[in-house]
Amino acid sequence: MEARFVRFDAVDPFELAAGVTGRPLFGERAMVNVIECAPGSTVAPHSHPHEQLGIVLRGMQALIVDGVTHELGPMEGYVIPGDVEHSAFFGPEGATLIDVFTPVRDDYRERWESAAS
Amino acid sequence: MEARFVRFDAVDPFELAAGVTGRPLFGERAMVNVIECAPGSTVAPHSHPHEQLGIVLRGMQALIVDGVTHELGPMEGYVIPGDVEHSAFFGPEGATLIDVFTPVRDDYRERWESAAS
Repeated sequence: MEARFVRFDAVDPFELAAGVTGRPLFGERAMVNVIECAPGSTVAPHSHPHEQLGIVLRGMQALIVDGVTHELGPMEGYVIPGDVEHSAFFGPEGATLIDVFTPVRDDYRERWESAAS
Repeated sequence: MEARFVRFDAVDPFELAAGVTGRPLFGERAMVNVIECAPGSTVAPHSHPHEQLGIVLRGMQALIVDGVTHELGPMEGYVIPGDVEHSAFFGPEGATLIDVFTPVRDDYRERWESAAS
């Protein structure tokens, strides 16, 4: 694999949930996803074996883990270990996030490739 | 490991190079580092076995890989495979970056723990 450079606004988006779109950058061992969340959009409870780290760049993301709601604003970050169920909702201005997954989420790659084709 | 939530401005910084400081968030398999770069600061050529992905949030980062300089502005990203030598310099306004490493950089963890103690 060679070094790669991208403008995220030139990356095709794919839908993660209603009103929630991702623009992914894939490495071999990890991926970064720049996520735009519409005002009031939500992500239903789910889990995945991948470790997830993230940071809010704009707006508010509430992450619900183990029944506790964590409201996160700009430059607040999180680690969600693999297989831990979580859900999310976003504030009235929406939100921009960066999520990191290790390993790469092949389900995202497939959905992104389908969306781009 | 449990889910964790942090405000990056409350994370102790550590020095990566003169004028370049990082605020790390460690997972088990990956880490995120929020990096502040002073105007005109530089990072000397180096490599590491860890895969690196990143994104510029503010300012300009020039990454030099294989003798080619890539000037990156806000919301531009990169993947640098492990063991690929790279260096960097930053623009007249400095820069704010997010770097992601897989696996966790234990050298960073040790330096951060030393700086915080």
